[in-house]
Amino acid sequence: MKILGLDSSGLVAGVAIVEDQVLLAEYTTNYKKTHSQTLIPMLEELRNMIELDLDTLDAIAVASGPGSFTGLRIGSATAKGLGLALKKPLVEVPTLEGLAWNLWGTDRLVCPLMDARRNQVYAAAYEFVPEGETLGLRTLIGQAPIDIAELLEKLNGLGREVVFLGDGVPVYLEWIRKYAEIPYRLAPASCNRQRAACIAALGEIYCAAGRVVAAGEHRPEYLRKSQAEQDQK
Amino acid sequence: MKILGLDSSGLVAGVAIVEDQVLLAEYTTNYKKTHSQTLIPMLEELRNMIELDLDTLDAIAVASGPGSFTGLRIGSATAKGLGLALKKPLVEVPTLEGLAWNLWGTDRLVCPLMDARRNQVYAAAYEFVPEGETLGLRTLIGQAPIDIAELLEKLNGLGREVVFLGDGVPVYLEWIRKYAEIPYRLAPASCNRQRAACIAALGEIYCAAGRVVAAGEHRPEYLRKSQAEQDQK
Repeated sequence: MKILGLDSSGLVAGVAIVEDQVLLAEYTTNYKKTHSQTLIPMLEELRNMIELDLDTLDAIAVASGPGSFTGLRIGSATAKGLGLALKKPLVEVPTLEGLAWNLWGTDRLVCPLMDARRNQVYAAAYEFVPEGETLGLRTLIGQAPIDIAELLEKLNGLGREVVFLGDGVPVYLEWIRKYAEIPYRLAPASCNRQRAACIAALGEIYCAAGRVVAAGEHRPEYLRKSQAEQDQK
Repeated sequence: MKILGLDSSGLVAGVAIVEDQVLLAEYTTNYKKTHSQTLIPMLEELRNMIELDLDTLDAIAVASGPGSFTGLRIGSATAKGLGLALKKPLVEVPTLEGLAWNLWGTDRLVCPLMDARRNQVYAAAYEFVPEGETLGLRTLIGQAPIDIAELLEKLNGLGREVVFLGDGVPVYLEWIRKYAEIPYRLAPASCNRQRAACIAALGEIYCAAGRVVAAGEHRPEYLRKSQAEQDQK
């Protein structure tokens, strides 16, 4: 099975192709350019480099939220456009499941943190559980916007060592140091941000399990209203 | 600290830039083109995309072996050329440490396997141990060419659950299934092959610890003689 993965939910723009549990190509940037300048050129670059025929894809997996509103819209629009043109289904991979997949194999709790401003993070907590010869994700705290203080209280309550990752970590590190009563670790550079390879790898697993949607039906999951919408109230 | 990472030790060609524990960009391909066709163009692509001034690098980290003879020579030549021209030191990251770094955070033993032909693998076994707020690698079996049967016997002797990764896994999967008496897991697509991001991330850690060499002094570690050299005997 061949899956294209896209992630533009945060500062990172990522494109990856996975086929039968092997990564064929991945392109990741974490840079000040907007995703509308990077995502499609990065896909084009990979397509040329590995002579990829897009018609051979089985599905397009996309980080489906939460995340930056603009970033999610660019990712979703790209995935939908490709899906409609190629007549391929989409796989919606929750952004925080994709982030957590970076820590595949750990026995610790995995807690991805995305900065959501105003002392809030988009956060979740997962653990890896045996699935045959590999491991799958089990959700302990589902992805949601939450105050950093409230999240740390919940994690203290779970009483297990945690690995933190995501762009929320540098923003809230002092909070973590002050309020985490459980032991914790910080993920290193190679696995502490979004990766399209995680979206594609999870996408292949979800696609095999039938978790696909028609391209026309996909909507990103913002999880909360935009600032402009909130201000209208 | 800003580190360029290069890995062309196996089928994968990878280029990555890490700065202060964050991945700025990564480009990975696992395709039939030779590394001499891909590595420099991939670096050029990243350099343009993130407007990277190579003079701002602190060091160049390279997967220093074992691996394919041609692949290692291309990686080393590229790293040496850049290091000499830019007057920057090199960081030699043993290939199997780079591979193992994919599984950062696991409590299991990590056993990277690279196919070395003739029922042999380049293999090693590592575990992750606490280092302040993060984790470091500890070597249990140092990287070496070894018969797959002998390796599995050694792992059985250690009596701990193992995660296997690397291009040797599909080649020797039936051996693993037949002779592994310990529980084992197979790493998924996002973390089961070489990544330049792992070389760059480890490179940053090693560079900070002073583990650098002058560009002119670097030699890849082949770990065994080439077939042609063996045939001469």
